[in-house]
Amino acid sequence: MASPTYAQYSLTLRVRISHRPGMLGRVASAIGDAGGTIGSVDLISLEGEHTLRDIAVYIPAEAVREQVVAAVGAVEGAELVDATDRTFALHVGGKIEIRSKAPLRTYEDLSMAYTPGVARVCLAIADDRTKAFQYTIKRNTVAVISDGSAVLGLGDIGPEAAMPVMEGKCVLFKEFAGVDAFPLCLDTKDTEAIIATCKAVAPAFGGINLEDIGAPRCFEIERRLKAELDIPVFHDDQHGTAVVTLAALINACRLTGRELSDLQVLVVGAGAAGVATAKLLMDAGVRSIVACDSRGALHSGRQDYEDGTMPDTKRWFAETTNLDRREGGPDDLVEGADLFIGLAGPGVIQPESLAKMNPDGMVFAMANPNPEVAPEDAARYARIVATGRSDYPNQINNVLCFPGIFRGALDVRAREITEPMKMAAARGIARIVSDADLREEYIVPSVFNRDVPDAVAEAVAEEARRTGAAVAEPGQIGYVPGEVDEHQVPA
Amino acid sequence: MASPTYAQYSLTLRVRISHRPGMLGRVASAIGDAGGTIGSVDLISLEGEHTLRDIAVYIPAEAVREQVVAAVGAVEGAELVDATDRTFALHVGGKIEIRSKAPLRTYEDLSMAYTPGVARVCLAIADDRTKAFQYTIKRNTVAVISDGSAVLGLGDIGPEAAMPVMEGKCVLFKEFAGVDAFPLCLDTKDTEAIIATCKAVAPAFGGINLEDIGAPRCFEIERRLKAELDIPVFHDDQHGTAVVTLAALINACRLTGRELSDLQVLVVGAGAAGVATAKLLMDAGVRSIVACDSRGALHSGRQDYEDGTMPDTKRWFAETTNLDRREGGPDDLVEGADLFIGLAGPGVIQPESLAKMNPDGMVFAMANPNPEVAPEDAARYARIVATGRSDYPNQINNVLCFPGIFRGALDVRAREITEPMKMAAARGIARIVSDADLREEYIVPSVFNRDVPDAVAEAVAEEARRTGAAVAEPGQIGYVPGEVDEHQVPA
Repeated sequence: MASPTYAQYSLTLRVRISHRPGMLGRVASAIGDAGGTIGSVDLISLEGEHTLRDIAVYIPAEAVREQVVAAVGAVEGAELVDATDRTFALHVGGKIEIRSKAPLRTYEDLSMAYTPGVARVCLAIADDRTKAFQYTIKRNTVAVISDGSAVLGLGDIGPEAAMPVMEGKCVLFKEFAGVDAFPLCLDTKDTEAIIATCKAVAPAFGGINLEDIGAPRCFEIERRLKAELDIPVFHDDQHGTAVVTLAALINACRLTGRELSDLQVLVVGAGAAGVATAKLLMDAGVRSIVACDSRGALHSGRQDYEDGTMPDTKRWFAETTNLDRREGGPDDLVEGADLFIGLAGPGVIQPESLAKMNPDGMVFAMANPNPEVAPEDAARYARIVATGRSDYPNQINNVLCFPGIFRGALDVRAREITEPMKMAAARGIARIVSDADLREEYIVPSVFNRDVPDAVAEAVAEEARRTGAAVAEPGQIGYVPGEVDEHQVPA
Repeated sequence: MASPTYAQYSLTLRVRISHRPGMLGRVASAIGDAGGTIGSVDLISLEGEHTLRDIAVYIPAEAVREQVVAAVGAVEGAELVDATDRTFALHVGGKIEIRSKAPLRTYEDLSMAYTPGVARVCLAIADDRTKAFQYTIKRNTVAVISDGSAVLGLGDIGPEAAMPVMEGKCVLFKEFAGVDAFPLCLDTKDTEAIIATCKAVAPAFGGINLEDIGAPRCFEIERRLKAELDIPVFHDDQHGTAVVTLAALINACRLTGRELSDLQVLVVGAGAAGVATAKLLMDAGVRSIVACDSRGALHSGRQDYEDGTMPDTKRWFAETTNLDRREGGPDDLVEGADLFIGLAGPGVIQPESLAKMNPDGMVFAMANPNPEVAPEDAARYARIVATGRSDYPNQINNVLCFPGIFRGALDVRAREITEPMKMAAARGIARIVSDADLREEYIVPSVFNRDVPDAVAEAVAEEARRTGAAVAEPGQIGYVPGEVDEHQVPA
């Protein structure tokens, strides 16, 4: 089970098999010969002369599915009852549900959780709006908001089609950090309408995670919401990527004994994630960055900069980085670089060009599913290789970051997620890898390492308290210290 | 435990009691003497010379709480450790949470529920938007949307303060009908902004329940959303009340052997619920209605009608009902009425006036918590008395209606909730009360009768199918019949 593609195309085959010696083996051989890999085999029932079995089959590519189905159907004594696509089956009815935390079996329950008792709680909040953090879901709930315009690598697929990704995000929030997250996919791509909608729904939420919203409007939306709301707003595509990249870089430098301030960094891909990553790296001490787009290095001498047609994200690079105005494409600019950060797509650089990097080169090729350079190729030239994929070492994945960031922010009722909080999150992730474990193939912890969200939350909460972004101490959400709370009647 | 007020003010007292014979009795007596009623008593621990106990205490009115607390504190050998308001304690952190339905323990799980596998599901929906009903939470999820401007009897308390009511509604949706509902309390009272927000968030939802939005904008909001969205939109304050009132009336007529078409109906309170109720009653066959507001009977001869200052809801009454232009207040108009419907507040009519009603009079006094006429008083003059309260017989409560209505609508993917569907819901509720059980004190089933939501859902779904409002058969949500679905690979 190396490649995740095997699981995403996997099938469950329900097969009725003649109850004779060797029959299951024949079916298994047919599946294997057709290109499938057998996972678990369950016995559903014994039916006289037959057994009914569910066979999970991993499939390397979509086209192989039909071959496998045909091969099983062709085995004499085996009858294919049903073939279910496991990924689609998992999605039927969606991936999250609402659960009640309040019992509701008697009129007594009803009179406390609903009318008439609920009115007392409503009035307490009407009297002091911040008590919503104590007595409503606002305390622990984040909105995952997208306009469906820049979903994964799929582009503008619309709000309904974006839902499975946002629901998946909500699953990750809950599973990794206990954060209740709800997906809202908006039927508008208008910047002002998105801002207005986010502001309108904000009372229910303790934070907003913006997701897969296209550039450049994602910048304006985030900037305005940060300014106009008193809850944290975080565009994960930008800042989540920046945080996990910085975490990986901190450990790569720790392993190779370098300082961030000495690094030459090449960023290929000058979109939203590129800008956020470059900004955070510079805040953390990186001094030399060159970024390039499909037309080469960005600098203030470029024609499109001078004639004003260069978009804002690239203008930021042109004005802030590459002040020497180095020219060329990735194959040229990689010369003398310590770190290659790919946020573009496959094929933007020849693997051989990586040979021109400085010693102990670091390649973070993060395009998903197909990295800028195949990790096997990059490993021939670079000391440390990281990707966005789970089937190679060093997966730089936002999942390491966003659950813990919001956990920490909610715990202290932070009004915003500041740059120092993001840097703290990166250091929190990096610290999880001990000196004893740190090595070329292990600079970032696994996304399934349950210590990660706790460490990130703790680092973020601590930084928020230190810098004044926090409103409450953990366990005191909604309280002003010393205040008597309604559910504690003074004795 | 007659009155729900006892539960809403109830306390949990944690008391450390000297371990001597008779001590618990002394504490119990002190509580009783101070006006409290003891519920469950739990032993938390034995601590040497002491026992630590949690004592649930029901309280008839807020002021009694301090008396009880003081009385327990005054018992020698007893120490009050803590007094917790049970209603507020129940609300800490809110009443609902998000749960993941997809396991997430391995990279395989991640590659099906999230990237890269999720992209396949996204693309299937991008290709056919209606598949959102099959593969996302849209299938079973309703938005409970309020602007917090007309919450219970509390008025305009704002969106944060409205959240406990909306969360309570979501609890009821899930508990009674398995509908996943999520509360959105909007930080705007502007009609167009509310409409725009509802439309923007609609892709995530299979229906919208509007709640506690003030008149007259609630009419325009509902009208526009019904026209502009392809999912059901239902303003529960209007239509839920109308449905349960009709249900009660159907059974009251069944019991007393009358036809709806023969009834003289007086409606006191000409707000949103009054209009919706009058409309549904007329659709069901009622022909004679007189409505009045605080200035008396509504008709087209009134000064405010003629000078155009009468608001739209009342204009509807003036133009549609009381064409004889009867004059007077409730005490006059109740003469010759068969049915009094109170949707106003206490004190709008003298109980003695009910003596002027026709024989077998029916009084539905639905203001909550204080009915237009005390049920005990009304019972002296009317054969059937119903209220909105759980501590009297015949509770006319929207909870009987909205969970089942949306359950039925979602089950057949109805595009809207039509008048015939509402009437079917009312008949569904009424049918639950069998001929054998039907009597003056039992014309509506209990809100805890689990047969109600099923019966309502079935009746609504059947009517939707019959009249063409349904898109899918139950069990076929998201399918066009005969279509092969992606998760079933053809064998």
